[in-house]
Amino acid sequence: MHIYCRQDLLLNSINTVLKACSTKTTMPILECILLTAVNNKLTLVGNNLELGIESTIEADVIGEGFIALEAKIFSEIIRKMPGEVIEISSDENYMTSIVSEKSKFQIAGQSGKDFPALPNVEKVNACTIKQIELKEMIRQTIFSVAQDETRPILTGEMLQIKNNSLNMVAVDGYRISYRKMELSNENDDIEVVIPGKTLGEINKILSSEENDQVNIYFSDKHVLFDLGESKVVSRLLEGDFLRYEQVFSPDYETKILVNRKSFLMSIERAALISREGKKNPIRVEIDGDKMIITSNAELGTSREELDVVLEGKEIVIAFNPKYLIDALRAIDDDNVYIQFISSLTPCIINPEDGDQYKYLILPIRVNS
Amino acid sequence: MHIYCRQDLLLNSINTVLKACSTKTTMPILECILLTAVNNKLTLVGNNLELGIESTIEADVIGEGFIALEAKIFSEIIRKMPGEVIEISSDENYMTSIVSEKSKFQIAGQSGKDFPALPNVEKVNACTIKQIELKEMIRQTIFSVAQDETRPILTGEMLQIKNNSLNMVAVDGYRISYRKMELSNENDDIEVVIPGKTLGEINKILSSEENDQVNIYFSDKHVLFDLGESKVVSRLLEGDFLRYEQVFSPDYETKILVNRKSFLMSIERAALISREGKKNPIRVEIDGDKMIITSNAELGTSREELDVVLEGKEIVIAFNPKYLIDALRAIDDDNVYIQFISSLTPCIINPEDGDQYKYLILPIRVNS
Repeated sequence: MHIYCRQDLLLNSINTVLKACSTKTTMPILECILLTAVNNKLTLVGNNLELGIESTIEADVIGEGFIALEAKIFSEIIRKMPGEVIEISSDENYMTSIVSEKSKFQIAGQSGKDFPALPNVEKVNACTIKQIELKEMIRQTIFSVAQDETRPILTGEMLQIKNNSLNMVAVDGYRISYRKMELSNENDDIEVVIPGKTLGEINKILSSEENDQVNIYFSDKHVLFDLGESKVVSRLLEGDFLRYEQVFSPDYETKILVNRKSFLMSIERAALISREGKKNPIRVEIDGDKMIITSNAELGTSREELDVVLEGKEIVIAFNPKYLIDALRAIDDDNVYIQFISSLTPCIINPEDGDQYKYLILPIRVNS
Repeated sequence: MHIYCRQDLLLNSINTVLKACSTKTTMPILECILLTAVNNKLTLVGNNLELGIESTIEADVIGEGFIALEAKIFSEIIRKMPGEVIEISSDENYMTSIVSEKSKFQIAGQSGKDFPALPNVEKVNACTIKQIELKEMIRQTIFSVAQDETRPILTGEMLQIKNNSLNMVAVDGYRISYRKMELSNENDDIEVVIPGKTLGEINKILSSEENDQVNIYFSDKHVLFDLGESKVVSRLLEGDFLRYEQVFSPDYETKILVNRKSFLMSIERAALISREGKKNPIRVEIDGDKMIITSNAELGTSREELDVVLEGKEIVIAFNPKYLIDALRAIDDDNVYIQFISSLTPCIINPEDGDQYKYLILPIRVNS
């Protein structure tokens, strides 16, 4: 392989595929980036067998071929190269020379043949949305993905197409985060579970430009996000996800409308005290048009008072403040509805207008 | 104690004194900030017995008094308070209430009497310099303070007034960093050694405003930096510091003038290869008007070529790249002189003009 390419384009591409490179593995080839030069294009691939990312740039290809280079050192070398143009050439022993102006590196590569190919996902029945919308949906749900592995399926997020709306749902046993978006074109119904870790990496690659779109394709075991210049393939998790629809009950005994930011900041303050204790809950009391939030630990106490609009009965209920904080931070609206049935059943946070999200949070039982 | 004060001023003050609060200690009082309200001033003090910082703000003092509050929780509460005005009051049991708008905290404080007073340093014979200049001198030397404790005196930096110039010197056994500044007013000669850790904290407090000055006072065991609204007292280290003057020899066999940034970037690239090996040195060869930098490890090799102006003999010498990188990063000049005697003796980096700094670096002996 022998090519010339632009340093800035190459570095960009490396930073994209690096997210799929293993850092600790018993298979050293997974710590590499595969470079393939053909038809005046240079294609880079990172693949840790759970997540695979491919990125293609323009290059001046003198000799076609492929080579696998250790990702960390390759990215550091390219990042620090002095010139705008990089020359990369490798010989039959995989010895690769990287040259820019008066800097020259020689590093040992590995055969590109040993690098695992990306799984093939047929490009039929694309679900097409804006990258910025997918980014938003991931941001607003991913924090509820289970961190422990006791139920592996919950370490992923369900991506569901149903009645031409795209739903994303994350559940960790204490809460459910749900986000929905209407699709503009016709789509077949589908349900898959994508590992949370790989969604986190995809999120970093998605563009924030208003007009950039992503085509999503599905196979039995994989999902492909086609972003144009880069492609992301993720393994799917197998197993039964929670039937979340049944859990969101429309019934309530208490429903309040509250300013999201004031509520969030009050809970963050109360959490300063409660987290000093052994994860003491915070206590929320709806008393007419007031919400009183108190917390209590060896260290001291705190009390917050907020205005709310109450519909239904007064209530006293306690929560792990972290779960309320995560949900309220993810929401952008000025005001939210919160509905309660009793102090032993979950509360649900809904938008003031519309049904684009729902957050369900289990309370903590306390002795009053 | 009972006061009202502005949230932003108080938070600023807390952030300043926090740098002197202990985080892990067997004396819980050292994890506190001491608040003293008197004469419509509120004074905050943090003191870990090595470093003490005092900061004073305007306050509306309703009741004079003092109280020690656990620094971490106090700073977090003040940071998150909703209003512009904070009310703090403590009762005879040291129970302290902190109120702002509809937020109220009650935390248990400790008696201010138990808090260790700052050491007294008499304000005579001030050495006065600009804060920004002291900040610069610390930044350009502190990286050479010894990290290991085998010779405790070298974990500090020497601050020396001699012939009306202020010198700062740090030594770690492999290199010496020296920075000097002419003083404008008359000063007595003095030599003290200030712990590196506390210099690092002082550096964060020093202002970058062109006109802010600092008065430095000395006692037998302490140094006081008076910044006006805040005062910093540091313990001094006891023992004999290196007689550094004798080590900087003006003799050389080889002297080169080189572009600092190009040299720095070449070494940074060479270090990518050398640090993959077991701290392999980089090899520097002066060959006529060229400098050739090479590095070599199992992973691969690198070669860099740079233009230099040579005076004297050609030389081949090897270094730990980190020491060259630290010194070259600290310097702001476009070009530097580097002088060598042999491949077994230290090199010295000097300014192209003037004598405001000197960096000495030991080479590594290699088999050629």
